[in-house]
Amino acid sequence: MEWTEQQLQLYIQEIQMPSQAHAEAAQQHSDQLTKPPGSLGKLELVASQLAAITGELWPDMSKRTVVIMAGDHGVCEEGVSAFPSSVTPQMVYNFLNGGAAVNVLARAAHADVVCVDIGVAAKLEHEGLVSRKVMLGTNNMVKGAAMTREQAIQGIAVGITLAEDLYAKGTRMFATGEMGIGNTTASAAIVSVMTGLTVKQAAGRGTGIHDSMLQHKISVIEKAITLNHPSSSDPLDVLSKVGGMEIAGLVGVIIGAAKLRCPVVLDGYISTAAALLAAALAPISKGYMIASHQSQEPGHIHALSALGLAPCIQLDLRVGEGTGAVLCFHFIDAALKLMQEMATFASAGVDGRTDT
Amino acid sequence: MEWTEQQLQLYIQEIQMPSQAHAEAAQQHSDQLTKPPGSLGKLELVASQLAAITGELWPDMSKRTVVIMAGDHGVCEEGVSAFPSSVTPQMVYNFLNGGAAVNVLARAAHADVVCVDIGVAAKLEHEGLVSRKVMLGTNNMVKGAAMTREQAIQGIAVGITLAEDLYAKGTRMFATGEMGIGNTTASAAIVSVMTGLTVKQAAGRGTGIHDSMLQHKISVIEKAITLNHPSSSDPLDVLSKVGGMEIAGLVGVIIGAAKLRCPVVLDGYISTAAALLAAALAPISKGYMIASHQSQEPGHIHALSALGLAPCIQLDLRVGEGTGAVLCFHFIDAALKLMQEMATFASAGVDGRTDT
Repeated sequence: MEWTEQQLQLYIQEIQMPSQAHAEAAQQHSDQLTKPPGSLGKLELVASQLAAITGELWPDMSKRTVVIMAGDHGVCEEGVSAFPSSVTPQMVYNFLNGGAAVNVLARAAHADVVCVDIGVAAKLEHEGLVSRKVMLGTNNMVKGAAMTREQAIQGIAVGITLAEDLYAKGTRMFATGEMGIGNTTASAAIVSVMTGLTVKQAAGRGTGIHDSMLQHKISVIEKAITLNHPSSSDPLDVLSKVGGMEIAGLVGVIIGAAKLRCPVVLDGYISTAAALLAAALAPISKGYMIASHQSQEPGHIHALSALGLAPCIQLDLRVGEGTGAVLCFHFIDAALKLMQEMATFASAGVDGRTDT
Repeated sequence: MEWTEQQLQLYIQEIQMPSQAHAEAAQQHSDQLTKPPGSLGKLELVASQLAAITGELWPDMSKRTVVIMAGDHGVCEEGVSAFPSSVTPQMVYNFLNGGAAVNVLARAAHADVVCVDIGVAAKLEHEGLVSRKVMLGTNNMVKGAAMTREQAIQGIAVGITLAEDLYAKGTRMFATGEMGIGNTTASAAIVSVMTGLTVKQAAGRGTGIHDSMLQHKISVIEKAITLNHPSSSDPLDVLSKVGGMEIAGLVGVIIGAAKLRCPVVLDGYISTAAALLAAALAPISKGYMIASHQSQEPGHIHALSALGLAPCIQLDLRVGEGTGAVLCFHFIDAALKLMQEMATFASAGVDGRTDT
């Protein structure tokens, strides 16, 4: 089923505001626990956010899924990545066989891994693969738009319908993951257009390119933006002109999660580029986002700030896949357990403050 | 058994350098895994460090213990904390009854909690308590030394012998925890003397004091340093004059862990003050330390930097107890699992870089 832009807008309009009353109830409980008020920092904020999102004080987040959207990038023919595009399908099989970093971390965090071929430039077959290919890799954005506006909408619809399917099967928390050689190039272009960062500020070393290749990557992105004139007030325009198909899919996962009143944990730079577009399309969706880590991409922290988010993890990761987001599940579990298992000042017989 | 200063020095001389050869072997393995080299950031560094510390490529770290040293501070009579000293013994019972934040997080991270009365200013009895009281709270450091040099050595010896006991019972990884109303005051004094930060830079809000109380806290610390003249080149002098008994105990745990070739995960500001003293007494012990989180105490990040350490977690915690260190166990487990379970480029049939 093809989605129209109007259908997408109608879906977005159904997203509800998180419940401030539930956030306050959670915070009131937290303030009774045997610790200085606020001293659990972001763990308390996350617990309140989860209450606001779900409408339950201590929601069951035990069924969680990291969605890995995989797609290729026409711009790779410009030589912007340290690895060849062949690595995208190879890594998809690695995910499906359980051997990638995200698989290991997902097993440790009791999360399911779902891998979606939304735009890989190769024919893929595997019983575990979710095949939702919109196109065989994007077009080269230095020669024209990466995709059509209709294809961008289709990509978002893939993410939304997948989130709905996973929800129907029990998932109550999502993490965003991706695979796509060249996708820090598309992400840097999106971040630059959406936040006003210069391309030089927004572009980083990706999988590990050296100085001269980084300079080339910057000039490629500048060329693509100059050629395509993406409009920062029209996120679908930005996505279609300088985006990526896996990024479109993640925009859909984020919007779908928000509509379904589920938290969505953002991974690194590519996920955050998708989140900027999702927030522009559906501002309320920001209340459903949780930032996980600060990656080595220099633009990442600025992109998170533009969303009003702050990372929980500083491990200098730059592997993508959803790795940082899955690691963050441990903190979300911790936040919920603290609220449920800690003693209160009254129950433990601990004195309160003397200065207030 | 009382320890002499000479005994302590002899113990310290037995600490071995971590094995650089094992670190390199771990890194070589890591570089074969299906990810851009170095892209797992600190997780790769931690895996290499664990190999260097233990002399095993993938050591078994499943038996881990957070040691909570509890002690009171005479300086509390100056009014430096938002909470009364009565909270120290009350929280000790809370730890022993499993209701504190660190208990919840330790259960989730499969860690044991050991609580030690090393200097609480109250008589405590509980079958779970490790009673090693050196003194009934320190002396008020604005009126003289917090403790004698002999007491400081005894406190360190308590930590060392406890680490030895726990190792004999199977513990292979330690986390430092503490409880002691007033101990950010002692820690700020230690950090200021040991790093050269001004007292104003080193002192923070602890459990949550307001502006005027913070100004008072700063002047109290300045007064204590002026009165006692602690010598930054003599860590035992600093510890005895402006330290705390729980800090002495943690110095011992760190030194003991290093001697036993076990990693020791540092919690927040108090643990890091202890680590500065341990590193001054036993420079090689730095190689056994892992920084967990960056707390809300403004001096903490500077104290970590002085040790050459960088935090993994940014949750704005300021609860102490060992909470951040215990959360970091999830990352240490992740680092070890990644090294053991990830596919290699060869085994997964993934292409390598094209640019080198």
